Amino acid sequence: MTVPTIGVTAGDPGGVGPEVVVKTLARAGGLPQAAYVVFAHPGIIGAEAERLELRIGSRDWRPDHPPEPGVFLAAVPGPGRLLTRGKVSAANGEASFRAFEAAVDRARAGRLQALVTAPISKAAWALAGHPFRGHTEYLARLFPGAIMTFWSDELKVALFSHHRPIGEAVAAVRKDALVDFLRSLHRGLGRIPGGPFRLLLAGLNPHAGEDGLLGREEVDEIRPALEQAAAEGIPVTGPFPPDTIFFQAKGKREVVAVALYHDQGLIAFKLVAFAAGVNVTIGLPFVRTSPDHGTAFDIAGQGIADARSMEAAVRLAAAFSATGS
Amino acid sequence: MTVPTIGVTAGDPGGVGPEVVVKTLARAGGLPQAAYVVFAHPGIIGAEAERLELRIGSRDWRPDHPPEPGVFLAAVPGPGRLLTRGKVSAANGEASFRAFEAAVDRARAGRLQALVTAPISKAAWALAGHPFRGHTEYLARLFPGAIMTFWSDELKVALFSHHRPIGEAVAAVRKDALVDFLRSLHRGLGRIPGGPFRLLLAGLNPHAGEDGLLGREEVDEIRPALEQAAAEGIPVTGPFPPDTIFFQAKGKREVVAVALYHDQGLIAFKLVAFAAGVNVTIGLPFVRTSPDHGTAFDIAGQGIADARSMEAAVRLAAAFSATGS
Repeated sequence: MTVPTIGVTAGDPGGVGPEVVVKTLARAGGLPQAAYVVFAHPGIIGAEAERLELRIGSRDWRPDHPPEPGVFLAAVPGPGRLLTRGKVSAANGEASFRAFEAAVDRARAGRLQALVTAPISKAAWALAGHPFRGHTEYLARLFPGAIMTFWSDELKVALFSHHRPIGEAVAAVRKDALVDFLRSLHRGLGRIPGGPFRLLLAGLNPHAGEDGLLGREEVDEIRPALEQAAAEGIPVTGPFPPDTIFFQAKGKREVVAVALYHDQGLIAFKLVAFAAGVNVTIGLPFVRTSPDHGTAFDIAGQGIADARSMEAAVRLAAAFSATGS
Repeated sequence: MTVPTIGVTAGDPGGVGPEVVVKTLARAGGLPQAAYVVFAHPGIIGAEAERLELRIGSRDWRPDHPPEPGVFLAAVPGPGRLLTRGKVSAANGEASFRAFEAAVDRARAGRLQALVTAPISKAAWALAGHPFRGHTEYLARLFPGAIMTFWSDELKVALFSHHRPIGEAVAAVRKDALVDFLRSLHRGLGRIPGGPFRLLLAGLNPHAGEDGLLGREEVDEIRPALEQAAAEGIPVTGPFPPDTIFFQAKGKREVVAVALYHDQGLIAFKLVAFAAGVNVTIGLPFVRTSPDHGTAFDIAGQGIADARSMEAAVRLAAAFSATGS
């Protein structure tokens, strides 16, 4: 049996990333069978495991060997001792960026079927001279069709736009961009097990505009985009009133709700998924998942970080890459 | 003991309004003690009760008599027979508008401590020549400080703006308007039992703008408004990231989350409150509540309408008006 190889990055060393990674992989026996490869400086991960009194594997990863189940380390150069915990630092930004870059490089080369990324600090990345707003924005530069989606047992949400001011996000709702997005999303979802998926598209205005009474975008941009997408065979319906669409989508495993801006989707998702949501980037040549929380600098180093979302991200990455084997 | 007098309008006669009113008031013995006065043509209510095989009181309301517990009818002129069920009609629009107008008139005259309104069709109102987008907009013309809020055991939400295109709603987030709103909201909440209430204010942009990185409104308008309001003694904090504020506010009885636009508040509220949410207009000289659903023309006349939200609206109206007695 061939097992998938799944890269795991520990995120910002000053945040809760190393903690949730160690907590999750220390129970690797209970996870789906895979070669889990942690991209980090071994000193950082070793110290974290010791602090938490947990054991994770420590074998060096040999990408040329056939993958076998277990936990491996892909050493990333950098300081082997944590210099700053609980706040933004350039050194930590550099460390998390390098680890992520190394893992993406291996994934692009086909050495990893999936990549799970613990939270980074974009302020730390900026200090270190890497001005990306997050993992997804970095990936979107390499893969322009990359799409941010959120997965939980109860609800799946795809975001048409994410880290943009709301005024810009509203102005970006145009027919052609929306058709392109629906095409990429449909294509990306086609490579994910559990499908085929149906798309429910949210409106932009209250009550989805009420035929133009409460806003024109549904009439001028969204309906024409839906008609075009449906004509191309994409299974999408809408636009639905934003305040009821998530209720409609909830509990339906084959449905992905499409939100037109960050908070439209994430207000709903975070209320429904609680601590077990997973961020999934669709439209890459490999699977990429991530826990649905930030670095949580305020509780870093206390041993109280909730690893459920990280574990869910690892399980989803394994499930999505299993069919490829 | 003096009981409050609570007006109840049956909403659009072709929708589920009369059904949920009859279902709720047929169990008046289990409701808080009050004089419940239904504003409708007696023929409409009588026929509905007969169809549902339920009994509600049928005594004529005498506003000059001291209120006593029970169900009363305030006859509103109009067709006594339902002409159109399950769709928009001018006659039904006229009937629901007249009943609402009569009830508001009695409330303004101090004859009612509270008013509970079943859902109307604004398309029917428009056909009948009454171009209001809803009860709240009608009340806001009479009482410019009127504010739309939503109540459930789990979550309370106030809306800075409601039935506006999102582009307009975004542009309306200005310091002075926001300070005025917070003043009116604080004043209105002060008259409601269960307080004092604390306000949590949502940001407008993703992550509440991240210090201007994802939008300027938090820096230029919202923070200055918050500082001004706090300086005046209004207990308000924020701006909080829109995708986590409702999670924060949930389960805290003394907290009202302030949403800056319709869907920001209602996406959250409808997921949390399910079928038991109540719409409450704050800032009127009387209490006004309403179920959190529409006319539901698609299921009108089938006897399957869920009356929980209507019952919750009646109970909340009674609770809010009890202290006045």
